[in-house]
Amino acid sequence: MAELTSSSPDVYPESERTHMRRLHERGSHERAAVHALLDASPLCHVGYVIDGQPFVTPTMQWRDGDRVYWHGSAASRMLRSADGHRVCLTATLMDGYVLARSAFNHSANYRSVMVFGEARRLEDDGAKQAALHAFTDGLFPGRWETLRPMTPQELKGTSVLWMEIEEATTKVRTGPPGDTEEATYPVWAGVVPLHTTLGRPVPVPMMPPGIELPEPIAALVASGRLR
Amino acid sequence: MAELTSSSPDVYPESERTHMRRLHERGSHERAAVHALLDASPLCHVGYVIDGQPFVTPTMQWRDGDRVYWHGSAASRMLRSADGHRVCLTATLMDGYVLARSAFNHSANYRSVMVFGEARRLEDDGAKQAALHAFTDGLFPGRWETLRPMTPQELKGTSVLWMEIEEATTKVRTGPPGDTEEATYPVWAGVVPLHTTLGRPVPVPMMPPGIELPEPIAALVASGRLR
Repeated sequence: MAELTSSSPDVYPESERTHMRRLHERGSHERAAVHALLDASPLCHVGYVIDGQPFVTPTMQWRDGDRVYWHGSAASRMLRSADGHRVCLTATLMDGYVLARSAFNHSANYRSVMVFGEARRLEDDGAKQAALHAFTDGLFPGRWETLRPMTPQELKGTSVLWMEIEEATTKVRTGPPGDTEEATYPVWAGVVPLHTTLGRPVPVPMMPPGIELPEPIAALVASGRLR
Repeated sequence: MAELTSSSPDVYPESERTHMRRLHERGSHERAAVHALLDASPLCHVGYVIDGQPFVTPTMQWRDGDRVYWHGSAASRMLRSADGHRVCLTATLMDGYVLARSAFNHSANYRSVMVFGEARRLEDDGAKQAALHAFTDGLFPGRWETLRPMTPQELKGTSVLWMEIEEATTKVRTGPPGDTEEATYPVWAGVVPLHTTLGRPVPVPMMPPGIELPEPIAALVASGRLR
């Protein structure tokens, strides 16, 4: 394993793996920044290696302290292959397209976080259920207790993986194109923002009468974002 | 390399790597579906393996036939490490949260594509410039010719990687939760859609007067989506 160095408990350690050679101004190893970005982006992409071939799988992640969790079918080859192996989990939010006067200075505004560690599978049924409870209520506050309870078969059919964050990097770009020295070149330059928002909830066709989307889920949806 | 089998030129071959064991109804190897999803999602996540550790990097991809391209700084460790090695490139569009009566049946509506191949770096300057031209105009029609031309230094500072799609899989989930047998359980169920749209363009502060965002870029932006 690469040697880790960290200057402070507020900063994730840095190794050859996460040392940033370029664009330092966009990057950070700060624990608070890493946590905030993970929390802001439930969708992530997890990288596994199976027989030397990388696999990048989209999934939902959630966090508890320095642990990141994800889940899936117990039959999933990815999840079975990941247990005990190195993983990289990356979450990215695209905030806009950056149009400059030159092709070279075109860019994107984005926030991304990349975390490294070793995947572990939760074996204890109680711990699994507690993790899924935290996942559900983390997205939809209070929902777990309102649901038809999980059956032993469903719990058995679900794998929960987690990793301790060993190293992590955030990268953020914001603002206009960085080509102010070319400000007189006669072409439009600026940012086209990208917005991701929640839409109006669509109830199932056969909903029994009188059942509404409960507060505070409805309030989150109305705000346009769950997190 | 895994043995490939394909029944038709319209379908990417399938190996152990891409054989779908579960949820067949959501998956496809159809060439047209793979291409449509790549074209719909410029943002992707590329998985590399460096010294046995997976790295998952967000970047923008573009396509020409059965080739997928991405780019970055010539100084990028990822891009240098990828050349000649196996990669997995995944693009995912989140369309909504699926709320069921049980935690187990909660899901997400999404469209994702995963492509496998071997990364290659474009070495020829003309080919590199042509690829970057296609990338720029693919997002912003006609923009390349309006820009301050690329300098030899900028071209030298940019790496363009590509892969021939050897295998590919799409996965799509749409519609309401699949738990109609529990329709009488007294909890709200349905879909909370997620929309990603372009916002109002923000010009740079010092834009010379009289310069507008050109058609047809303005028309695409007004439509809410570039692709």
